[in-house]
Amino acid sequence: MPTTTDRDRSAAARGGLSRRGLLTAGASGLVGASAVGVPMALASSGTDTAAGPDDALGRATVPFHGVHQAGIATPAQAFATFIAFDLAPDVDRDALGRWMRLWTGNAERLTQGRPALADTDPELARAPSQLTITVGVGPGFLAAAGREDEAPPWLRPLPEFTIDRLESAWSDGDLVVQICADDPVAISHASRMLTKDARAFAGVRWVQAGFRHASGVTPPGATPRNLMGQLDGTTNAEPGTEEFDHQVWIDDGPDWLRGGSSLVLRRIRIEMDTWDMVGRQGKEETIGRRLDDGAPLGGEAEHDEPDFDAVNEIGLTVIPDWSHIRRARPDDPRQRVFRRSYNYDDGPAADGESGAGMLFVSYQADIDAQFIPIQRRLDELDLLNEWTTPIGSAVFAILPGCRPGGWLGEALLD
Amino acid sequence: MPTTTDRDRSAAARGGLSRRGLLTAGASGLVGASAVGVPMALASSGTDTAAGPDDALGRATVPFHGVHQAGIATPAQAFATFIAFDLAPDVDRDALGRWMRLWTGNAERLTQGRPALADTDPELARAPSQLTITVGVGPGFLAAAGREDEAPPWLRPLPEFTIDRLESAWSDGDLVVQICADDPVAISHASRMLTKDARAFAGVRWVQAGFRHASGVTPPGATPRNLMGQLDGTTNAEPGTEEFDHQVWIDDGPDWLRGGSSLVLRRIRIEMDTWDMVGRQGKEETIGRRLDDGAPLGGEAEHDEPDFDAVNEIGLTVIPDWSHIRRARPDDPRQRVFRRSYNYDDGPAADGESGAGMLFVSYQADIDAQFIPIQRRLDELDLLNEWTTPIGSAVFAILPGCRPGGWLGEALLD
Repeated sequence: MPTTTDRDRSAAARGGLSRRGLLTAGASGLVGASAVGVPMALASSGTDTAAGPDDALGRATVPFHGVHQAGIATPAQAFATFIAFDLAPDVDRDALGRWMRLWTGNAERLTQGRPALADTDPELARAPSQLTITVGVGPGFLAAAGREDEAPPWLRPLPEFTIDRLESAWSDGDLVVQICADDPVAISHASRMLTKDARAFAGVRWVQAGFRHASGVTPPGATPRNLMGQLDGTTNAEPGTEEFDHQVWIDDGPDWLRGGSSLVLRRIRIEMDTWDMVGRQGKEETIGRRLDDGAPLGGEAEHDEPDFDAVNEIGLTVIPDWSHIRRARPDDPRQRVFRRSYNYDDGPAADGESGAGMLFVSYQADIDAQFIPIQRRLDELDLLNEWTTPIGSAVFAILPGCRPGGWLGEALLD
Repeated sequence: MPTTTDRDRSAAARGGLSRRGLLTAGASGLVGASAVGVPMALASSGTDTAAGPDDALGRATVPFHGVHQAGIATPAQAFATFIAFDLAPDVDRDALGRWMRLWTGNAERLTQGRPALADTDPELARAPSQLTITVGVGPGFLAAAGREDEAPPWLRPLPEFTIDRLESAWSDGDLVVQICADDPVAISHASRMLTKDARAFAGVRWVQAGFRHASGVTPPGATPRNLMGQLDGTTNAEPGTEEFDHQVWIDDGPDWLRGGSSLVLRRIRIEMDTWDMVGRQGKEETIGRRLDDGAPLGGEAEHDEPDFDAVNEIGLTVIPDWSHIRRARPDDPRQRVFRRSYNYDDGPAADGESGAGMLFVSYQADIDAQFIPIQRRLDELDLLNEWTTPIGSAVFAILPGCRPGGWLGEALLD
């Protein structure tokens, strides 16, 4: 139930529609806004519907502007929706520029808790809940922009892997937007606003929605558990470190890509029903880590360095050679990628078969140098392949960030 | 990042697999469990994986046992998945009894943060996050149990309404389970465990997943905002009051239904794209309430009583006669229902058209006496019908709760 103070604050926010609002605006209205910690940028925005009676998680924002786009180094929010678009046939560089200007303005507004410019439901923008909006482009976008000569060599569909069972309904695209937040309502609203903006320029190719634990379920920074029950992401570099920056951000090549990154998004079905038939020891040996705390086999804690040379009393390696962490681990540290994956669950089929899986998401500076060597090793030999099937695959060049007054893709399209 | 204490606690929970665990179990292990407030029932359960490093929201539980099932009077959690089943042809009363015993045991365990009896991923049960599991039965269930003579008269498909465009893929069913929690991972895991249990008895007819604001986004008890932007549920009775009890719980008729309720679940597509074309005043007059704070037109605050007689300066009623709240409001207070609805969003179609809507969920003691009169009025005249299309409809009898040692459906099947 809203408290009396909440109601009065709402009345005050309406700008004097009610006598009660007028009478209390000076006192409880302003005090209330300050007491709940509404950011100044919101509290001072005149005509926007901003100061709602939302709790701390709802009001939390991630800065939009910067050298890099938000949503990559940002601690992963609980929910993510990826929407890929196919360009309409007649879209040229000018049109792309108009689209990106429109999106930049609305992404800036929505991520900061303000309604989109032509927002028809401004109240739904009130609680951004750490909303981030991150834009990447595919080969078709560069072609339409007349800049295919500046496409990075890795901007193409991944080579075919023997484990792949790809469906075009989940693959490729001319442009992608990753929309993340700790609130699914914020994502739904931002998706609708951005999709409406896009209508003049492109059609929707696919939509993929994913989730992790909701905010508050596990401690901040805890490694998430995927639907196979394993902690997933233990070896990720820490955003902000030199290791992370080197792994993720592009610092050479054409202007329009410096400060950007690359995204690999693979939709991986998990064969939960046969995975369930594997015993606990079998699962742990398949992964190479304990299920309960994620420690490497033979280790004591999640972040212990795996000892791939350790053998047991009969001389077998404690971490099997065919385990996922042994195969995924590059000998060359330059081959690492930054993972930011989400679970998906379409619900069981008629026969009860699980519809669950993973949106594997990795960011890296160079797909050819970093992602593909790992994936080749996993394709050759990784016991986990028995229970995972890639059914979608897409690659995008992530644009660099923009400064206040600038727009995403400016260096590419202007 | 897990703290050192978390890692030690995990090591201790493994039961002495590591020296560090053994050395610290007496100190940080037990102190840790107590410090984070793990419920005693979990902390003392020997073989279950229980004391995980989860935060308060993850550890929160809703009692399973009681006169009524949980998940109805329970403050609505952020996420809900409804799964309907069709019985296999050969399933008889004995088989239904085995199924309900199995489900009761696992529902009790999962809702209290313990793994299901044959849980293959026990770690995924660690964070129930206010998980509730609520079971209802359809006419086919009573027929298979040989108790169709005791079916309440309202346990049948709703009469056809002119606004309906029902698809069988979203309608009817022999049994339904409503799974709610503040964490989508908890729901995904519980869905899988319950669906596996059900395989010997029934196939999945449909699955519908819904969401509200995540926990922490809006204050506890705040009326949720649906994807049309309106506050939805303002006039709901307060659980625990006499009004609520009278509205929701069945207190007469056959034994097996006393303490139960009835569920109406309707999948309602929202025509967001034409709704977006309506101006703000048009939207507010369609609903009869202000969008920003949910106050009835002419009123000052959300919970003000609407004044349906008030007229403006040119003599028109301030709340139009064709507005949703005017049409939905019964003159007879016995006709009210308790709403517990969720949003859904399947994402935009190829042409950008919104795939959003509402899982309209109402609980009431008697569908014929309470729900149908309201729905008939709305079917005859409700401007909101222009932008909403029911595409699924299902009705179930919600079983009463059970005591420790008992099981759901005992009075029907034993």
